[in-house]
Amino acid sequence: MASVYQQMSTPELDAAIAELEHAADEVRACGLSLDMARGKPSPEQTALSRPMLDMLTSDTPLVDGNAIVDNYGTPDGLPCARKLAAEILGVDPANVIVNGSSSLNLMHDLVVNALTRGIAGQKPWCHQGEIKFLCPSPGYDRHFAITASFGITNVPVPLLEDGPDMDVVAELVESDPQVKGIWCVPKYANPTGITYSDEVVRRFAALKPAAPDFRIFWDNAYAVHAFGDEDDELLNIFAALEDAGNDNLVYEFGSTAKVTFPSSGLAFVTASDADMAEIRAAFAVSRVSCEKFSQLAHVRFLRDLEGVQEQMAKHAAIVRPRFELVERKLTEGLGGLGIATWTHPHGGYFVSFEGPEGSAKAIVSLMKELGVVMTGAGATWPYGKDPRDTNIRIAPTYPSLENLGEALDVFVIAVKLIAARMERAKR
Amino acid sequence: MASVYQQMSTPELDAAIAELEHAADEVRACGLSLDMARGKPSPEQTALSRPMLDMLTSDTPLVDGNAIVDNYGTPDGLPCARKLAAEILGVDPANVIVNGSSSLNLMHDLVVNALTRGIAGQKPWCHQGEIKFLCPSPGYDRHFAITASFGITNVPVPLLEDGPDMDVVAELVESDPQVKGIWCVPKYANPTGITYSDEVVRRFAALKPAAPDFRIFWDNAYAVHAFGDEDDELLNIFAALEDAGNDNLVYEFGSTAKVTFPSSGLAFVTASDADMAEIRAAFAVSRVSCEKFSQLAHVRFLRDLEGVQEQMAKHAAIVRPRFELVERKLTEGLGGLGIATWTHPHGGYFVSFEGPEGSAKAIVSLMKELGVVMTGAGATWPYGKDPRDTNIRIAPTYPSLENLGEALDVFVIAVKLIAARMERAKR
Repeated sequence: MASVYQQMSTPELDAAIAELEHAADEVRACGLSLDMARGKPSPEQTALSRPMLDMLTSDTPLVDGNAIVDNYGTPDGLPCARKLAAEILGVDPANVIVNGSSSLNLMHDLVVNALTRGIAGQKPWCHQGEIKFLCPSPGYDRHFAITASFGITNVPVPLLEDGPDMDVVAELVESDPQVKGIWCVPKYANPTGITYSDEVVRRFAALKPAAPDFRIFWDNAYAVHAFGDEDDELLNIFAALEDAGNDNLVYEFGSTAKVTFPSSGLAFVTASDADMAEIRAAFAVSRVSCEKFSQLAHVRFLRDLEGVQEQMAKHAAIVRPRFELVERKLTEGLGGLGIATWTHPHGGYFVSFEGPEGSAKAIVSLMKELGVVMTGAGATWPYGKDPRDTNIRIAPTYPSLENLGEALDVFVIAVKLIAARMERAKR
Repeated sequence: MASVYQQMSTPELDAAIAELEHAADEVRACGLSLDMARGKPSPEQTALSRPMLDMLTSDTPLVDGNAIVDNYGTPDGLPCARKLAAEILGVDPANVIVNGSSSLNLMHDLVVNALTRGIAGQKPWCHQGEIKFLCPSPGYDRHFAITASFGITNVPVPLLEDGPDMDVVAELVESDPQVKGIWCVPKYANPTGITYSDEVVRRFAALKPAAPDFRIFWDNAYAVHAFGDEDDELLNIFAALEDAGNDNLVYEFGSTAKVTFPSSGLAFVTASDADMAEIRAAFAVSRVSCEKFSQLAHVRFLRDLEGVQEQMAKHAAIVRPRFELVERKLTEGLGGLGIATWTHPHGGYFVSFEGPEGSAKAIVSLMKELGVVMTGAGATWPYGKDPRDTNIRIAPTYPSLENLGEALDVFVIAVKLIAARMERAKR
């Protein structure tokens, strides 16, 4: 479909550009300072967890069964915290380690372990020549940064409506022993918000990697983060593995960073028996113990999966109007113009926006000039290189509704102006 | 000096052995179950920090200056926590990162960073062939385990009364570019309890390493952990570096694991400007944020260095009688027998014991049989190999005074019995 600007005569287009530039000048004159850059909960959301700070006092018994909270020991985490984490992920607590407050840090450390010590009886990756990781794109910049920081080659693979393009993934994983991992956010993916279909999960579970030390980094960051009426269903990858008769293939991660407090939540990892034995051996060297006070406070506050769901319903009530505002503002401002598409997630923290080819960097740059910081264009692709320069990640949760509305109005102007200018430049 | 057993006639020695075996049998019959294995604070000590659990409530303002406690951000740690950590180490807060609850984990991650990404403009250690770390021995088993786990060669160097043998250290560091680091506990060293002399610190500061990517891992774990009347003075390594006109040589670490709560304290690192820039870049990939609630609670509880010292005086009151008991029991039981020596530290968590050559494994093994778990013999040496098999680490803090007394009585019997048997075997 031709865009609204393609359909205009050149004088009409010039007039439209002049009008948009005038609108942009007016915004510029306001001196806005708004931030839509990162997937951060808003202050209203973090306030939901304040009661957690009353859960432990100097009188609290500092034990959990036989585990001692206020001294070394229990490196896998308090039993009660492992149980809660296992409920969130739908796995066996015996195969869960709760440690630290950052699941990204756990992912980092498992890449490090394979890189430096080797896994599955193989040589360390750092002595196996070029190592490749598959990066469904658009995806999560901090995932890609971990592997890139070690000189691992990040290979983009298409992320479709129902998950990564599994024909491409299977071809690469099953033919190339240098492919050692893939970064996945299987539910409410960052940034598109899609959830992997059962078929995609089954194809992951049935992979026969060329490398015995290939692992799927299954970052189930948004397992309980629906904000609409509908919660996407993600097939349990470990159940799928069992059905496929496959094993030692998946590291699954989760956290409560966006359930309770960012940077002070619980982080956890689960894997097969054999993989967990390797993970425990690695952690025994680097992580003597864990933050058991935080674990105990979390369990006292959240109780169980039902308690988590109650807490997430409160988050949803705050988050949902923001996503509805994104949908409304983009539809009103850009709907039917033939210049942009965007996603309509049921959960998670992002809307993924696709502008005209070659527009994203220019739009984000103009937004910055107009006083609105967005995630850098290209950030959702390995090495920051979006090959078509179309993708922009919208993170609507942190700003107030009022600020978000202003920011989106500016965004609509910026997208239209860049699209119109690009059309003009072609003539 | 000939030992008491060497001076005995063989019948006398046989009688002594029979008597000691009888004593051991009596102990065995008691079915003791005591633990002197790890440097853990006792429950009385951790109880000192319970009031910290009342410091934060749902009403606490969750800010520290401009820093937000309950959301992402401030990756170097809260300003108030960095200030406290800087006071403990006597350095500039601008060069301090407070992150996580385990300084060992920070050390691990800085070895990883050099190993995988490289530091000081050099290739990653993992692509530089054989890498060596110097290990003043006896030393801390968990230090040695980090480097060993990556296949780094741990090279023991003698630990003398005033610190590592600096002639040996300087020779190795300044001639061999494969030597990339040294593990140091400069104050109340684990396990001997000695503090490095000013001269040793100055010689460290004046090192001219053959490798530009050599670093001293200066684990100042017991900076404020005196328990006697006398507190050893450790020369500030960064002041010494400045005097020596040297730079980019030291990573210094500290924690409050044994000030507040093991596994839930604050961990921190400091280094030169250039080194801190590298550390920040590495942490930006692996550690998005930090446990700011714990940091705020710590600062509210400990306040400042004076508050830390008040807290440590309370620890000292609990710890000191235990160390006095060790000194008394060993002197009463083994003094003047010519079979053993031990250290007399003013602070820290350990007494280092030296038995007859070839006795340590046998003593620890007999102790286990008699119901007392000790740190494994050899653990204080790289690869668990004490070349003379003499060193045993005594960790007196965790057991109650009563249990500690029982354990030490058993220890005296075990040492005497093994020493006597060894003498008998020679005849």
